Amino acid sequence: MVGNDHTSRVWKGDSKNFKSRYPNTGAGFLIYCLRLMKREKREMKGFFQVQTPEQLLQKIERFKPISDERVSIEDSLHRVLAEEIISTIDLPEFPRSTVDGFALKAKDTYGASEKNPVLLKVIGEIPMGVVSDIVVKEGEAIKVATGGMIPKGADAVEMIEYTEWIDPQTLSVTKPISPMENVVQIGEDIRAGEVLLPKGHFIRPQDIGLMAGIGKKEVKVYLQPKVGVISSGDEIVPIEKDPSPGEIRDINRYTITSMVKENGGIPYFLGIARDRLEDLQEKIERGLRETDFVVITGGSSVGTMDLTMEVLRTFPKTEILGHGLSIRPGKPTLLADIGGKPFLGLPGHPVSAIVIFHFFGKPILRVLSGIPKEHACDEIKIRAKASRPIPSIGGRVDYVRVKLEEKDGTYWASPVFGKSGVISHLVRANGLLKIDIHEEGLEEGEEADVFLI
Amino acid sequence: MVGNDHTSRVWKGDSKNFKSRYPNTGAGFLIYCLRLMKREKREMKGFFQVQTPEQLLQKIERFKPISDERVSIEDSLHRVLAEEIISTIDLPEFPRSTVDGFALKAKDTYGASEKNPVLLKVIGEIPMGVVSDIVVKEGEAIKVATGGMIPKGADAVEMIEYTEWIDPQTLSVTKPISPMENVVQIGEDIRAGEVLLPKGHFIRPQDIGLMAGIGKKEVKVYLQPKVGVISSGDEIVPIEKDPSPGEIRDINRYTITSMVKENGGIPYFLGIARDRLEDLQEKIERGLRETDFVVITGGSSVGTMDLTMEVLRTFPKTEILGHGLSIRPGKPTLLADIGGKPFLGLPGHPVSAIVIFHFFGKPILRVLSGIPKEHACDEIKIRAKASRPIPSIGGRVDYVRVKLEEKDGTYWASPVFGKSGVISHLVRANGLLKIDIHEEGLEEGEEADVFLI
Repeated sequence: MVGNDHTSRVWKGDSKNFKSRYPNTGAGFLIYCLRLMKREKREMKGFFQVQTPEQLLQKIERFKPISDERVSIEDSLHRVLAEEIISTIDLPEFPRSTVDGFALKAKDTYGASEKNPVLLKVIGEIPMGVVSDIVVKEGEAIKVATGGMIPKGADAVEMIEYTEWIDPQTLSVTKPISPMENVVQIGEDIRAGEVLLPKGHFIRPQDIGLMAGIGKKEVKVYLQPKVGVISSGDEIVPIEKDPSPGEIRDINRYTITSMVKENGGIPYFLGIARDRLEDLQEKIERGLRETDFVVITGGSSVGTMDLTMEVLRTFPKTEILGHGLSIRPGKPTLLADIGGKPFLGLPGHPVSAIVIFHFFGKPILRVLSGIPKEHACDEIKIRAKASRPIPSIGGRVDYVRVKLEEKDGTYWASPVFGKSGVISHLVRANGLLKIDIHEEGLEEGEEADVFLI
Repeated sequence: MVGNDHTSRVWKGDSKNFKSRYPNTGAGFLIYCLRLMKREKREMKGFFQVQTPEQLLQKIERFKPISDERVSIEDSLHRVLAEEIISTIDLPEFPRSTVDGFALKAKDTYGASEKNPVLLKVIGEIPMGVVSDIVVKEGEAIKVATGGMIPKGADAVEMIEYTEWIDPQTLSVTKPISPMENVVQIGEDIRAGEVLLPKGHFIRPQDIGLMAGIGKKEVKVYLQPKVGVISSGDEIVPIEKDPSPGEIRDINRYTITSMVKENGGIPYFLGIARDRLEDLQEKIERGLRETDFVVITGGSSVGTMDLTMEVLRTFPKTEILGHGLSIRPGKPTLLADIGGKPFLGLPGHPVSAIVIFHFFGKPILRVLSGIPKEHACDEIKIRAKASRPIPSIGGRVDYVRVKLEEKDGTYWASPVFGKSGVISHLVRANGLLKIDIHEEGLEEGEEADVFLI
């Protein structure tokens, strides 16, 4: 895991007198003891205090939504409600028919059948959008369309399917109905004073429709979080540049800013930080000043992570919430709270960065967006069967990149194997299959949860 | 179903001599015969040629994507590729390490074990982003970080976990490795000339990352379809207006334009059309002139639908693809092709309009956006158990509004009952449970597919 200079220096000193320089020479018991001592020292140093994903996720509850603004309901799609929506009216505001048919007194239809229909006098028609003064009396019916108003005197609507014109004024009815059948009563949809949508609700098209229905034109929603994104590493170059050997184009800038957008945040790219304290410091400071959440990728090499930690310690209100996760890919993850703003350090591997942002960056973004903490991690999981055995090492949560396909109503997940760090196999995948911390892989046909990517 | 004036007129004529005007009078065999004749005539008239959803969906294949444009890869999220992405380079462009460790010759490690480690001379370190001229010789190793370049002479990387510093120049190695272990070779991720993404691909964050990785700054994507949305009905008023009794606020404008946005289209609201030929004609014409796809809601009442059909017939290249669907809710759906542009008539009920737009409007929008026809209806389905019995009438596909909840890894669907047309129960729902055309409801605990709304 670690090419750590501090650790190396300790051992360089301790092993000063040991001089076996040649390959294939057994070094035996002494090396074995040295190794044990080294392990102990690392643990004492608290290097990578590895946590489970659940432990780390509990810590994001401390973050709070930014502020709120008023927008027209048309602009509120996929935003989060910063107010309760309470109805000021009854809906419908008048009794309405739910079918095309004839409004009448239900008791006039009692006993009607195909063989023994009831005949009623049709006294007119109620056009849509029009209020009628007509009163329906015993033995009478009035034509009404779906959504039309039910006139006084009528208490039910006979569907047109169960009626027949006998002559221009006479209707035959072949089915008995009960009072209120095919009628939506005043306030049956919505009652005045009723809480329709809670604060923290994610706004979907039907919710906008509901607000339109009660005449609400504007709504208070939480601000979209601004997210500062930093790439880091001496080998990283902007994609415009032809990389020299040893250099790599900055993939993470594009994947992470896209994921921020996809999840309701507004991304700000802060640049590529070199592995130097001042450069990291400048970019992190700017991020904390100008945005609500700072994400850095490429802190996976221990050198950069150490520098990052050094920068974070210069801010008075820094609290390290986690450093190291029992997850694959993504072990070297860093989460901090800097004066109430979240700071997330992601691995430099594009694939690991995407996986960790999915499971940690996204919930943080949701909390900042105003989604209640208990729903921050809500996500649809597809139950799928492994199309072939999928190995895994226990002791960590493993997210295997899979291609999800439906065959005859069953979802099958095929692992997309490839060495870590290659982006092409994440492009071939459309899901992340979870193998839990205590499991050691899946057999063919065994079921597991798949998260969509 | 039908308050159809044409049909009524026919029967008014035919029943001229039949004079039983009084309620509760058995009309017997004559009425029975008249009813049979009426049914036959209706069928001959081809009124509501009811199709299955599958039959209608096959007909959307005729529609074509609009045109294309070049955008920066940052702006290509959730757009659809109008070109193949072919790599011009090998990725990686140099052999890279996938771990933190030591680059060496694999054969030097053969036979190494915890009890019998191999000792190697460490000849230096390769910093990230730097090309080294060092050549690794037999018995030598060089420190390398994840992503770092593998120097000449070396063919594998030993992970740091299986090494131990013996003195500042000497490393002990305790595990044998094979050639190429922990090395990504040139072109192993991506080969020059390889098709990375096909035309018609929906662009996700990882796809943008892949394009960044090969240095692609701009990409050709299909234009987002412009969708003209018309509300219709004499009873419909803008939401700003306090509706008089009998009037209803225009909910559909907001739900349908939001669903257009949610699915990658650009909505244009064309106004509320009154139930008059000229008004409908003006709005439909404007929609066909200024947008790529016209959607009208409120054509569910037969009167409006007849008017709409009359307007459509005035365009020389109109082809009616379907009129009436064996689906609930949403039977009175109209689909036409007007000179290559789709025209969709939705029911006026807000709930029905949403359901039909979900299953028909969305696939049309996807085809216009450039998604291949065979993927136009791709959608994630959640397999869920009915939390209580859900009745259904056979002979049509039934979409029951349900609330989906996860309990101990199983999804349960609870029907949200309520009369058709009430928007509040669609707000309480988050899924549509499908009961197929030949099924007659679900028992408690029985499984079915749920579509997310």
